[in-house]
Amino acid sequence: MAVKTGGTMAKVDVKKKILSENDRMAAENRARFGEAGVLVLNLISSPGSGKTTLLEGTLDRLAGQVRVLVIEGDVSTDRDIERVKAHGAGGVQINTGGGCHLSAKMVAGVMPELDLDEADVVFIENVGNLICPSTYDLGEDAKVVLLSTTEGDDKPMKYPAIFHESSVAVINKIDLVEYLPYDPARAEKEIGVLNESCDVLRLSALKGEGMDEWIEWILRRLEEKRAAREEAPA
Amino acid sequence: MAVKTGGTMAKVDVKKKILSENDRMAAENRARFGEAGVLVLNLISSPGSGKTTLLEGTLDRLAGQVRVLVIEGDVSTDRDIERVKAHGAGGVQINTGGGCHLSAKMVAGVMPELDLDEADVVFIENVGNLICPSTYDLGEDAKVVLLSTTEGDDKPMKYPAIFHESSVAVINKIDLVEYLPYDPARAEKEIGVLNESCDVLRLSALKGEGMDEWIEWILRRLEEKRAAREEAPA
Repeated sequence: MAVKTGGTMAKVDVKKKILSENDRMAAENRARFGEAGVLVLNLISSPGSGKTTLLEGTLDRLAGQVRVLVIEGDVSTDRDIERVKAHGAGGVQINTGGGCHLSAKMVAGVMPELDLDEADVVFIENVGNLICPSTYDLGEDAKVVLLSTTEGDDKPMKYPAIFHESSVAVINKIDLVEYLPYDPARAEKEIGVLNESCDVLRLSALKGEGMDEWIEWILRRLEEKRAAREEAPA
Repeated sequence: MAVKTGGTMAKVDVKKKILSENDRMAAENRARFGEAGVLVLNLISSPGSGKTTLLEGTLDRLAGQVRVLVIEGDVSTDRDIERVKAHGAGGVQINTGGGCHLSAKMVAGVMPELDLDEADVVFIENVGNLICPSTYDLGEDAKVVLLSTTEGDDKPMKYPAIFHESSVAVINKIDLVEYLPYDPARAEKEIGVLNESCDVLRLSALKGEGMDEWIEWILRRLEEKRAAREEAPA
């Protein structure tokens, strides 16, 4: 049998208060990003699913056509911001010092360091965690969940919240599938059950397979964002 | 530059209170496990690092010599308890329903369902998360951290707390290392910097390589626990 469990009422109330404060600040961030006309994507996955490698490949492919800024979230170290800077992106590293997700307040805190008027797309790489970041709105346009083939095809149903919240699921490390007991169709089917409007892309950020479709997905979202902005009343 | 960030004071106070209440219940769990003379291991890793596969292989190898119970922690589904039961273990599934870690209270809650007098070892498979479970003592004898090669060799320094807390680090999926940009020596060196008394084992839970050393590690800990119990004053 399976035991269902939950927090105490006091804990739940504190969590609610934190989340509603977070929602308020996320709305402010969203307004700021909206004024600047940038598309903001919040990348979420387990540690080591390939978020930074996906960003590196994305930066190389967008170079010269789309201006990118990156907000890097990590518990510790500035390794990831160094990696994306080496691929030409500006940006800033946030270290949570133990915190398991980025919050809207953390993103607001680094906003003054980002020259949004000189950017088209802002990527926020969240802390490596498939659970906690899913409930914290940062003011993004869309959440992007990464799931690598090496993590197994049974994960969507075991971590349902993030798949429910995401606009696109990127199945990464597809180049390794021949060495694994992994069925991409099973993972995709589960994602579809959780969120039928979630796009699903298969790719290898390291080897390049499927990256064109990912870049097309970003450019389409950027176009939609700009079109909506032009149509909006001044 | 890297921005360091933290919670508000109110949030910190609530966290402290939750942790001290957790510590109290963990001590009760530890006393309970101690009376029964069982060795308790708390398995922690990212989603998909191979905790359940490691348990399956472990159960097959311990069968007939060591009696095992499993407490399975997951956000959702009872897939993992079904898998370990198919390999002969008794046990119970805890679903956190969104919660990002097991707590001592959750473990205490399922204790009446476990016949500890008929067990030698209890494995607790924590929720897949490399961050939050590291701060919650469950009453275990030792934390076991799994890190799979596919997650990259740069992870220990990026997620330092769990490596600091663990008695052994299992580097899993060593069979895939030839297809990856991965240096096991780098990961091991970082673990050593964070916690010089942490044992490190390389293995493939799926293919079997290195499993003998893991089984020896468990049996050694079980012997130490029994010896300490015999020496303790009645």
